[in-house]
Amino acid sequence: MNQNDAAMRLGVCYYPEHWPETMWADDARRMRELGIDQVRIGEFAWSRIEPEPGRFDWGWLDRAIEVLGAAGLKVVMCTPTATPPKWLIDQYPDILAINAEGRPRRFGSRRHYDFSSPAWFEASQRICTEIAQRYGQHPAVKFWQVDNEYGCHHTVVSYSAAATKRFRQWLRARYGDINTLNEAWGTVFWSMEYRGFEEIDPPVDAVTEGHPAHRMDYRRFASDEVARYNRMQVDILRAHSPGRPVVHNFMQMFNEFDHYKVAADLDAASWDSYPLGALEEMWFAPEVKARWLRTGHPDFASYNHDLYRGMSRLPFWVMEQQPGPVNWAPWNPAPLPGMVRLWTWEALAHGAGCVSYFRWRQAPFAQEQMHAGLNTPDNQPDIGAAEAARAADEIRRVLASGADGAVNTRVALIHDYEAKWLFEIHPQGADFHYPRFAFGYYSALRSLGFDVDIIPASAKLDGYQLIVVPPLPVVPDDLAQRLADSGAQVILGPRTGSKTASVQIPAQLPPGPLASIMPVRVWRVESLRPNVTEAVDAVAPGLPRLVAQHWRDLIEATPAVEVLATFADGAPAILRHGKVHYLASIFSDAGTRAILAGVAQRAGLQPQVLDETIRISRRGDLVYVFNYGEVAYDIAGVEATAFVVGSARVEPQGVAIYRQPGQVQ
Amino acid sequence: MNQNDAAMRLGVCYYPEHWPETMWADDARRMRELGIDQVRIGEFAWSRIEPEPGRFDWGWLDRAIEVLGAAGLKVVMCTPTATPPKWLIDQYPDILAINAEGRPRRFGSRRHYDFSSPAWFEASQRICTEIAQRYGQHPAVKFWQVDNEYGCHHTVVSYSAAATKRFRQWLRARYGDINTLNEAWGTVFWSMEYRGFEEIDPPVDAVTEGHPAHRMDYRRFASDEVARYNRMQVDILRAHSPGRPVVHNFMQMFNEFDHYKVAADLDAASWDSYPLGALEEMWFAPEVKARWLRTGHPDFASYNHDLYRGMSRLPFWVMEQQPGPVNWAPWNPAPLPGMVRLWTWEALAHGAGCVSYFRWRQAPFAQEQMHAGLNTPDNQPDIGAAEAARAADEIRRVLASGADGAVNTRVALIHDYEAKWLFEIHPQGADFHYPRFAFGYYSALRSLGFDVDIIPASAKLDGYQLIVVPPLPVVPDDLAQRLADSGAQVILGPRTGSKTASVQIPAQLPPGPLASIMPVRVWRVESLRPNVTEAVDAVAPGLPRLVAQHWRDLIEATPAVEVLATFADGAPAILRHGKVHYLASIFSDAGTRAILAGVAQRAGLQPQVLDETIRISRRGDLVYVFNYGEVAYDIAGVEATAFVVGSARVEPQGVAIYRQPGQVQ
Amino acid sequence: MNQNDAAMRLGVCYYPEHWPETMWADDARRMRELGIDQVRIGEFAWSRIEPEPGRFDWGWLDRAIEVLGAAGLKVVMCTPTATPPKWLIDQYPDILAINAEGRPRRFGSRRHYDFSSPAWFEASQRICTEIAQRYGQHPAVKFWQVDNEYGCHHTVVSYSAAATKRFRQWLRARYGDINTLNEAWGTVFWSMEYRGFEEIDPPVDAVTEGHPAHRMDYRRFASDEVARYNRMQVDILRAHSPGRPVVHNFMQMFNEFDHYKVAADLDAASWDSYPLGALEEMWFAPEVKARWLRTGHPDFASYNHDLYRGMSRLPFWVMEQQPGPVNWAPWNPAPLPGMVRLWTWEALAHGAGCVSYFRWRQAPFAQEQMHAGLNTPDNQPDIGAAEAARAADEIRRVLASGADGAVNTRVALIHDYEAKWLFEIHPQGADFHYPRFAFGYYSALRSLGFDVDIIPASAKLDGYQLIVVPPLPVVPDDLAQRLADSGAQVILGPRTGSKTASVQIPAQLPPGPLASIMPVRVWRVESLRPNVTEAVDAVAPGLPRLVAQHWRDLIEATPAVEVLATFADGAPAILRHGKVHYLASIFSDAGTRAILAGVAQRAGLQPQVLDETIRISRRGDLVYVFNYGEVAYDIAGVEATAFVVGSARVEPQGVAIYRQPGQVQ
Repeated sequence: MNQNDAAMRLGVCYYPEHWPETMWADDARRMRELGIDQVRIGEFAWSRIEPEPGRFDWGWLDRAIEVLGAAGLKVVMCTPTATPPKWLIDQYPDILAINAEGRPRRFGSRRHYDFSSPAWFEASQRICTEIAQRYGQHPAVKFWQVDNEYGCHHTVVSYSAAATKRFRQWLRARYGDINTLNEAWGTVFWSMEYRGFEEIDPPVDAVTEGHPAHRMDYRRFASDEVARYNRMQVDILRAHSPGRPVVHNFMQMFNEFDHYKVAADLDAASWDSYPLGALEEMWFAPEVKARWLRTGHPDFASYNHDLYRGMSRLPFWVMEQQPGPVNWAPWNPAPLPGMVRLWTWEALAHGAGCVSYFRWRQAPFAQEQMHAGLNTPDNQPDIGAAEAARAADEIRRVLASGADGAVNTRVALIHDYEAKWLFEIHPQGADFHYPRFAFGYYSALRSLGFDVDIIPASAKLDGYQLIVVPPLPVVPDDLAQRLADSGAQVILGPRTGSKTASVQIPAQLPPGPLASIMPVRVWRVESLRPNVTEAVDAVAPGLPRLVAQHWRDLIEATPAVEVLATFADGAPAILRHGKVHYLASIFSDAGTRAILAGVAQRAGLQPQVLDETIRISRRGDLVYVFNYGEVAYDIAGVEATAFVVGSARVEPQGVAIYRQPGQVQ
Repeated sequence: MNQNDAAMRLGVCYYPEHWPETMWADDARRMRELGIDQVRIGEFAWSRIEPEPGRFDWGWLDRAIEVLGAAGLKVVMCTPTATPPKWLIDQYPDILAINAEGRPRRFGSRRHYDFSSPAWFEASQRICTEIAQRYGQHPAVKFWQVDNEYGCHHTVVSYSAAATKRFRQWLRARYGDINTLNEAWGTVFWSMEYRGFEEIDPPVDAVTEGHPAHRMDYRRFASDEVARYNRMQVDILRAHSPGRPVVHNFMQMFNEFDHYKVAADLDAASWDSYPLGALEEMWFAPEVKARWLRTGHPDFASYNHDLYRGMSRLPFWVMEQQPGPVNWAPWNPAPLPGMVRLWTWEALAHGAGCVSYFRWRQAPFAQEQMHAGLNTPDNQPDIGAAEAARAADEIRRVLASGADGAVNTRVALIHDYEAKWLFEIHPQGADFHYPRFAFGYYSALRSLGFDVDIIPASAKLDGYQLIVVPPLPVVPDDLAQRLADSGAQVILGPRTGSKTASVQIPAQLPPGPLASIMPVRVWRVESLRPNVTEAVDAVAPGLPRLVAQHWRDLIEATPAVEVLATFADGAPAILRHGKVHYLASIFSDAGTRAILAGVAQRAGLQPQVLDETIRISRRGDLVYVFNYGEVAYDIAGVEATAFVVGSARVEPQGVAIYRQPGQVQ
Repeated sequence: MNQNDAAMRLGVCYYPEHWPETMWADDARRMRELGIDQVRIGEFAWSRIEPEPGRFDWGWLDRAIEVLGAAGLKVVMCTPTATPPKWLIDQYPDILAINAEGRPRRFGSRRHYDFSSPAWFEASQRICTEIAQRYGQHPAVKFWQVDNEYGCHHTVVSYSAAATKRFRQWLRARYGDINTLNEAWGTVFWSMEYRGFEEIDPPVDAVTEGHPAHRMDYRRFASDEVARYNRMQVDILRAHSPGRPVVHNFMQMFNEFDHYKVAADLDAASWDSYPLGALEEMWFAPEVKARWLRTGHPDFASYNHDLYRGMSRLPFWVMEQQPGPVNWAPWNPAPLPGMVRLWTWEALAHGAGCVSYFRWRQAPFAQEQMHAGLNTPDNQPDIGAAEAARAADEIRRVLASGADGAVNTRVALIHDYEAKWLFEIHPQGADFHYPRFAFGYYSALRSLGFDVDIIPASAKLDGYQLIVVPPLPVVPDDLAQRLADSGAQVILGPRTGSKTASVQIPAQLPPGPLASIMPVRVWRVESLRPNVTEAVDAVAPGLPRLVAQHWRDLIEATPAVEVLATFADGAPAILRHGKVHYLASIFSDAGTRAILAGVAQRAGLQPQVLDETIRISRRGDLVYVFNYGEVAYDIAGVEATAFVVGSARVEPQGVAIYRQPGQVQ
């Protein structure tokens, strides 16, 4: 239901400081020739902008912006705070964050700073102000990016003295007095009571598992520190460069701070999309990693598109799009020919306003020298360049046909950052992995042909017909009411409503405040090791035999609740009360798909079971078909004239776009 | 042969400080209704007893004891030293132990103390004295528990300055002069000679493997520090509360200090039994963990019962009995219905005086909020409550029949703490895991229907007919004589007698001092990686072909020694000399069972091969049959009238108890 | 082509300080009886030589040398610097190296020193001078060993303040001024620019991957520190003991410093050969480890022989030869009977001047008490003693027949230390393991019956007909020319020429300076996870279908280059240009063998495909046949009279040596 304005354009990330000045003009010209509209610069250039304390060297950057602007490129100017220079670290060593072992996280790569360091906060204010003042009104500078990839390399949390001090302040602000905290946390357990906030240390190096509420609040605090830091930069940019949208480039399936809070201070969310690196680094099983080796998982980038679309006031961007092999995953295969174009269109189909390739040219030095660009280090166009050019061409066609509407779906899935933290802090089952399970539901929805809005638990729910709630331990007080008011069919994952905000078990047991719409009592739970599965049989016809894993909520249901399926021991596995469904376990992919298909039909939606290699998206009145597979896919029942891009036969790694006016999804 | 007096009763662990005072009386009443006789309190309540330095708040505890006593419950009062409060840590930061990386093990969970810290020793004396003075003569207080689960969370060993200082004193006391130590350790190797005790540091952060004798002595020292600390508390309690038995709750298959030494200062040993958590956390293979997912391994709790029975002057207790799912294992399944009762009877059958459930009610907060109790957090009885009530009923029946005799067996197995440390420090084969191997022999004995005494290597051996010695590297000087004098058939595991107390190879090679009863020379050994097995063939008929793994002692035998089986290369695999048998390897479960069955028959015992799901115990003139399996088990040849509990058909998770007067096992 | 003089003799490592003086004379006598010529002593004896600061106790050592010399043994005297005594560490604590976590690597084992510590450097000079002065002219002392196993236990790199200081000096010496360094490293990336050398810290604890050139230079620096330290000792020994060859005992397949540089200062290289421990500890798959459990891998010791032969001015030695089970691998099986003799002859066949067993007698104490010797701790000869005696006998026969020529082969393989470091620092694929891949080519060559010289990339190449270059990222400027001039057939592994010395991508892309002989452009690469394989098909007949793994170089070839095989997507997999072949991937063992066989034939060599259990070596005009297998092997076509040792039937673990005058390999 997110209404994006619908410009579609391409961009690129560029590092003029890496290349002789003599190359810049040619680079800019070739960018334009390729169909690129915008160029991001400067996010790692501090040591060139301010080579010595207080001595600024603006000349090269002035000229770079000049050259790029003169070629007709819109400049996305960045604040360079992701890489403070060595002299600054030497001046203020406590800029460095402190790791869980008590050691500074040192200079020598990037993001070597502590969000809570006062010296760092001031230094950041200073450099941001300098840059904003210089380029805030520059005609070529159309956008700002703040910092770069907050939290990358586990940099959200620090255990420094500065963080400790600010954590105590944060606790005082949250709880008011120490007895309230003691009560909320339950510190009477194991004599962990505090007499004052100044007695509270960061939750590190405890003899065994630290207190879950203590750890949870530390995660919340650290997340809030990111938001506070971001807001400081945004405020400076807004003051000196009014009217230029401010963005940040978030990361893929990254959950270490509350992105909703940070995005609320931005004009647009953007994210960095590396489908092959993600596949390799994330939770997928080895055989899944091999299956999608050179395409990425067909639902992974989409998940992120749908997530960031939901938190972006202006259309979201892909700020960095993988253009070839990367360098940072354990293994780094090359995308199949066609994938760079496919990924580009996939982003646009999901509502992106811009897809910006990272990077213009592969640098021959330093950590990322093996990270492909649109051009090779010897300045020859790589495969990605041709595919970007083709996409640019196709964008012109699509835009010319006036077809840049919004993504408009009746299906929503809730994504919650605190859920990730809570299940990490207090897992009860070692493999209860929130992103994996949330992704599982999402992938099932996509395999049924649905577009999906990914939304926070606090979102308005009007207009949705199907709402999926992956395991959501802490539910907002008004969620039950909003779900009921929405009129949607609702699916609740296991452990939903299982905790209070203070990481306690709700007084009347889970699902806590959701008992009003799902009147059950989860009186016991069990987690199951990976080599154990549980068979689940449908009580009424309609569902196949299912396989459950990982977890069981053991449920006492009021008579008003229908039991749709049971475990072998007779315990309810799937329950329904009115429009609300409760899943007491994690089901296999096929099982999840079958359950969701059934509920979608009850919601009046038409699920369309897709092959695992085919995905469909809708934006405005266009339908986008993507082929992740090895064989051609034939779209049935669409007139040849309806195709704006491609045709009814979608080749492997191909894209087809056709018009379907008035479609309802 | 351990003679226990035979009261049988139930108890529970209770935390009045976690609940509103208004609930206490009802809790006490319901405990009694369930058939519970005793209640343990206070072991984590320091912050409530002494909320500020020197300010004691006894009121709530006085009232709690009053309420419990008034209901007819015997109170097990605890010293609260497992959880020193934050203010004490802030006063004396060196109470915290130091880990192997040199960092303090901080406040925020429990057991955050260093056994060697003088400040801690004094603080402990002070709080123990205060509590003992206040409640030592209280009529409701019938027992004392000292501290809680010594050593849990790897807290036996600390590398602090205080530990270093005391280690040097300990070494001086052991060796007298430095040359004796140099000689005993063999420090001439690699120029590790010391000129004085003050030159010796803890064995930590050496460039490669530290000196084994140095490491072994550090383990011994750390173990002795536990005993010394425990003795201090026991002495205080005895002084102020004479006549009340003092216990400590040990842990399951926990070997990090010498429990025999600590138990020698107690009136009764108790242990905390969590069969499902143990299964998940211990060495068992994944398929074994899945096999016994919701019952625990049929021999695991028994091993501990038999071990702690042997070190308890009064009948041992299960101080904490798992009542439902726990929270602390990687995965936490729920016990099958019936298992709480089964575990209760299993403990009593092995001689327990009391089985005490942990905990009365599941707490909704803090680290253990997912640990089940007899009641759910919303104060409804959980499955365990009904099973406890049933057990209480059955206990009354058994006691009424006068049947509370002792466990009386002719079979013993030696369990040695130092063996565990030595094979860890000096494994020679990475998977030479003492508890696993000792358990393997025990499990084989149990599968043959035997009751087993688990005893220290220093125990009297008279009266046994079969003695199994799992790998015992350091043998007491008089062991050979005691084994010979016992008249028992003896089975020695590999590596027995392979080291001196100073971690040297015996001068005449292994089995060292046991050569007098097993005249062989282990001239070479080899450890074998897990994907290698060795076939073993019997020389004489009677043994099947065996599979050996992990280890081979290569043996030169005098002609007087019979070779019963050989490896493929002709090396002896099983040897016999008189009544003494030597196993040169670790055999598969089936092989071990076959070997033990044969020797048992030589000993005049009648092995009865049981299904893996059925276990039998004898106490007094009652026979207890336990069914861990999925199908009913029919006891043959017992008159219906003989059954005190249950009947000849033992349902899954069922228990049957029948009288068999004058039985000999 | 390495011309060694060809004495063959046996030695042993002995520790008189471990045994009563009364045993020495008998030990010496029995050594001689066994046929042992030389004895190494003293390398860990510092605490006995200088029991207190400045107080030397020479008496025992004088007498030990006397006894050994009197028996006719040549003494290899050692400097004892691998084990500084505790009093020295207590005097100068910064002798200890600092690990990556910032903690000292403490006393308690060995090699507890920092190569960069000034206090250590001086202390080493002092003790070396003392020892060299005392024994430099002693008639029994014929050789010197410097220190012991440089780098063992990860001791090359330290992160101490001393190392930091010297690293900065090293960088200044290498780069001259900071801008040159900034340019060479590419520090403009991520604002990592330095304003002066004093700003540069060791590459440790960076937030994410540190700069690759920074890390590479730190490895080079640390390697150079080893060479500098070694040179200091060599200089002292040469000054005080002229004419006595100076050796060091390197380790097996150990790559943590540049052995070519250290060996250049020695008179002879020696190495310590533990085939079973190596098999267990190295990269081999579990099934390979089981396959060669008690023999070691048939090509492993050979690789090291051929490597160290190439860097030894005088014939190399095996300074420590495994005589039985060792103690330090995760599992420690026993060699099959015959293997000690086989390993001895294998070393000699590869050109060794001496094979010296470690150790004379198993010590019953300390870390290595489970390490076998030629004698057991109770002073009985172990199997190895008899095998050494047999070898001594056979050596006399071989020498008597005048057959101690040199190894003389036309096949070379390049081994490069920096390649190992670079692929570790900058792997791009997590399992791109240089030693494994280099060994793979070597093993293929050996399986084809070839003798192999292993040489540095800087070696003269004249006379070779086949040169194999495993992945060699940084190629010397003149390598292309030398390869071309050699006239040999050349095989280049993937990633060869892929980096400059500053860890940058060559300006014209890989293979960089080798493009002159292999005119291709590696425009893209991809690494492949272990569960992915790629099929490779020959373009022309002659090669079977191959299986590729780990890596693909994607290659654009000029028309002059022949494509011999392609991947399924058409990309070239094997290319040829003149005599130069390029392999774009890592092939399975069978594939590598097929490729190498084909190229060898082009080179005019006669590959002889051997069973995996049979290996052949040639030295002088003798042929040595080794049987690693389970069944006898029959040598065809050799007259019975030609055999100097053994016969045409080579039993399992057997050796046969026959004369084949004028053989050309």
